[in-house]
Amino acid sequence: DLKPPPVLVGGEPLDKVRHVAKAMGFEKAVHLMDYLARHPEMDPFGTDKRKGPQDPKDWETFAGVLVVADPGDQFWPALQLVTDVLLSPNPQAAELAPEQVPIYFSNNDLLWKEAFAHSRFGQGAYVATLRLLYEKRLAALGLSEEEIAARTSGRWNIYGKPEVPQQMLAEKRLMITAAAKGDAVPAHFYMVGDNPRSDMQGAFNARGAGRPWDGVLVRTGVYQDGDDTAHASVVVDSVAEAVEWILEHGINEGHIPAEKS
Amino acid sequence: DLKPPPVLVGGEPLDKVRHVAKAMGFEKAVHLMDYLARHPEMDPFGTDKRKGPQDPKDWETFAGVLVVADPGDQFWPALQLVTDVLLSPNPQAAELAPEQVPIYFSNNDLLWKEAFAHSRFGQGAYVATLRLLYEKRLAALGLSEEEIAARTSGRWNIYGKPEVPQQMLAEKRLMITAAAKGDAVPAHFYMVGDNPRSDMQGAFNARGAGRPWDGVLVRTGVYQDGDDTAHASVVVDSVAEAVEWILEHGINEGHIPAEKS
Repeated sequence: DLKPPPVLVGGEPLDKVRHVAKAMGFEKAVHLMDYLARHPEMDPFGTDKRKGPQDPKDWETFAGVLVVADPGDQFWPALQLVTDVLLSPNPQAAELAPEQVPIYFSNNDLLWKEAFAHSRFGQGAYVATLRLLYEKRLAALGLSEEEIAARTSGRWNIYGKPEVPQQMLAEKRLMITAAAKGDAVPAHFYMVGDNPRSDMQGAFNARGAGRPWDGVLVRTGVYQDGDDTAHASVVVDSVAEAVEWILEHGINEGHIPAEKS
Repeated sequence: DLKPPPVLVGGEPLDKVRHVAKAMGFEKAVHLMDYLARHPEMDPFGTDKRKGPQDPKDWETFAGVLVVADPGDQFWPALQLVTDVLLSPNPQAAELAPEQVPIYFSNNDLLWKEAFAHSRFGQGAYVATLRLLYEKRLAALGLSEEEIAARTSGRWNIYGKPEVPQQMLAEKRLMITAAAKGDAVPAHFYMVGDNPRSDMQGAFNARGAGRPWDGVLVRTGVYQDGDDTAHASVVVDSVAEAVEWILEHGINEGHIPAEKS
């Protein structure tokens, strides 16, 4: 249980991430920008834009790392400081400890879609680059490939789509909402999304685990015609069309075989 | 020749990097922070700290990318925007072009040493993470491993230590300095440095290419006792000791066999 000991928390925006960590019960959560404000020498590229520590308690030994949102503009200190803590739970005291603390990521999407015409890198880009640099740093410290693999094994935890627990959490929330409103118990679930690798793959993985899910892929974001649909049951132009399609074809009929859009 | 067409330039500090690019003859150099100020939607994590364009000329199609210094705090936009330009010389017009523009890095050191007790990630960390994300992005666009390798082949250029041309440039500068001062022509060269993988490996690579070089490794930075010395001829505690050692053992005697410190 990570809740009593201090944990290092990463993600932007700073205030929201601090709030989420507290709401999750992590009373001794130190945001990496607060940790950096306490030890500015850890980032030689740091500039005056660093925000001072919100919580000046001097917790220095971390029990784990939680990445609750994309590091965004904090990408660089997030790579450097989180690597420091993965090498050693107290980087001020030692460069390399025999064991790595566990790290948890909320999401592994490589890409997402925002205002710009082309997909942008998301938290999955941070997960992949952190892993690469951490492994290169361990190799530079003389660890073998086997030692590196053993060190990270079971201590590198990625949540979020397209993992089955994420889909089951969605089921649970929908069940609770339906019960609260006095609606019928949902018997089938539809994942409406624009990202084949997370949204559609999530529905497909849930189905593989025996859950009643189908994927409805919309052309409004990451997905472009010609891309792999990751087993979407249908491809539509908009969320309105997705709802229409579900009302027409889908409700409570169980799994629908994939069809061409 | 990249000098007439516009090139995208990355690195911190912004003003120095702009100055270096101009001094190198790149009149149409656009710093990536200027490019980002022109197209803020390219970075959804961008905040108000972005600096406005120094040079408002609307060059949009780049002939190449120069990374002249560590991106540091600009690590995140440097990963996103340079990937955009490697995918397409004009990302505003197209997401993916058939060819990649060439990219040049000034340095490939994974680690360097500053005020903090443990080594910090340097430009080599940027080179490695950019390559990883660019390849993942190409794979997400449907390119095969072979297509990705062909696309980057010969267009991914890394300068700096431990490459032999870097050591030969140092020789040339020392020859010019000696001639200007009326000193004797240098017959042997010593690389004094703290980083085995760049400094000592550079001297070793030069020796492998028939150049008269030895490496003198100092314990003042990246190197820690027990690390691989990368063929250093000697390990000493300080730069003063390095000079003493060279005066005592080294001058103009040609290659010195490696000895234990």
